[in-house]
Amino acid sequence: MADQVILLDFWPSSFGMRVRIALAEKEIQYEYRDENLQDKSPMLLEMNPVHKKIPVLIHNGRPICESLLIVQYIDEVWKDKSPLLPSDPYQRAQARFWADYVDKKMYYCMSRIWRNKGEEQEAAKEELIESLKVLQGELGEKPYFGGETFGFVDLSFVSFYSWFYSTETCGNFSIESECPKIVAWAKRCMERESVSKTLPHHHKIYEFVLQLRKRLGIE
Amino acid sequence: MADQVILLDFWPSSFGMRVRIALAEKEIQYEYRDENLQDKSPMLLEMNPVHKKIPVLIHNGRPICESLLIVQYIDEVWKDKSPLLPSDPYQRAQARFWADYVDKKMYYCMSRIWRNKGEEQEAAKEELIESLKVLQGELGEKPYFGGETFGFVDLSFVSFYSWFYSTETCGNFSIESECPKIVAWAKRCMERESVSKTLPHHHKIYEFVLQLRKRLGIE
Repeated sequence: MADQVILLDFWPSSFGMRVRIALAEKEIQYEYRDENLQDKSPMLLEMNPVHKKIPVLIHNGRPICESLLIVQYIDEVWKDKSPLLPSDPYQRAQARFWADYVDKKMYYCMSRIWRNKGEEQEAAKEELIESLKVLQGELGEKPYFGGETFGFVDLSFVSFYSWFYSTETCGNFSIESECPKIVAWAKRCMERESVSKTLPHHHKIYEFVLQLRKRLGIE
Repeated sequence: MADQVILLDFWPSSFGMRVRIALAEKEIQYEYRDENLQDKSPMLLEMNPVHKKIPVLIHNGRPICESLLIVQYIDEVWKDKSPLLPSDPYQRAQARFWADYVDKKMYYCMSRIWRNKGEEQEAAKEELIESLKVLQGELGEKPYFGGETFGFVDLSFVSFYSWFYSTETCGNFSIESECPKIVAWAKRCMERESVSKTLPHHHKIYEFVLQLRKRLGIE
C-alpha cells in the first residue's frame, strides 16, 4: 500500500516551508492543506491538540508535530533519497544545534521587527543582525551549512529567506550589507528546485505582512 | 585509546542532570566540572561561545551543547547499552516531541513561581499545573513515558522533580494533589540508581532557591 501523506500548513509559514522543502528533496507525494489560522480545522485541532499549530505531517493517519522534528522524521523514514542530516553522530549533533539556533532566533527577531516600531524594533534589528553574523561565522567559506551538500541546517534556515525583504523593508535596513555571505548562501540554495518552488515570492510575503500590520494597527 | 569525557555543569541545573542521568545509564566514566555561573570558566566560554551555558559535554576534545542534543548524542555514540530513544522513527519523533514540551514548559513555569509573587506567580502556577496535566495525560497508565522502559522523555522530565518541593513551597500548593500520577511516576524513576544518585536532595535545592530569592530581593 502506498504511503498516505498529508501536510497541514499555512503558506507564509517558514516552519511549514522547511517541511515542504524536505518533502520535495525526498520527492514524496503528499496532499497539501492550507489552514486558516483564524479558524483552525477540526483536523488540525485533533492532530496537534497540544500546540494547535501548523505544520503537522500526517503519515498513514499518525501525526508528527514541530517542524524540526518532522524534518528529522522524514529523513529517518525516507532514508534512501537525499540524506538531510549527517550520518556521523557528532556532525548530527552540530546540525541539530544550528537548526535549534535558527529556531530560537529568526522568527523571534523578525516578528518583532514587523510587529513594532521605535526602540523595540531597533533592539530586534540589532539582535537579528548579531544572530545572522553568528550564522555567517558558522557558514564560513563552505557552500552550505552542511558542507558540500545542502542539508538540515540549510533547509531549516533558508525558509526564512522569503521573509528577508519584508523584514528589511519594515526595519529600513539591508541584511545583504550586514551579512553578504548569508545572502549569497541563500541565493545558492534558491538554485535548488526544492527551495525555489517552495518559497513564496518575497512580494507576496510582504503583502501578507502589510495586511497583518494593518490588522495590528501599525501605520 | 579510552574516550575522554568531560562534563561542564552546575549542580542544581535540571538540564545538567539530564546529561548526568544519561551518562549513568550508559555507565560512562567522565570528569565532572562544576561551573561558577557568576564567573564562567574560560573553558566554558571557549566550548560554548554561542550560548555560554551549561551543560556542555566535551568528548575527546569536541564540545556538544544543549541538554537534549547531548543526550541524543550520547545515545547515538554509546548505542549498545541502555537505549534511551526508541528505535522506531515514529516513536522517536513522539519522544522528541514530549522532551521538547518539557523543555518549553518546566523551567519557564517553575522559575516564574520562585522568582515572583502575586499575580505573575499565580499565572505561572496555573500554566505549570496545566502542563503537568497534559504530561499526565500522555503518561496515561504506562509505568514510564517510554512505555515499559525508562527512556528519553523520562530522564528529560524527571530532572525537574528535584525542584518540585521548592516550587510547591514558594508557590504554596501541592503538585501531588493536582497530578498524583506524575508524582507516582517520578518516585518510580527515583528507584533507578541513575536518577537517585544524580538528583540533589530537594532540601538542598530549596536552600539554593532561598539564596537566589534573597539575591533577587524576594521576601
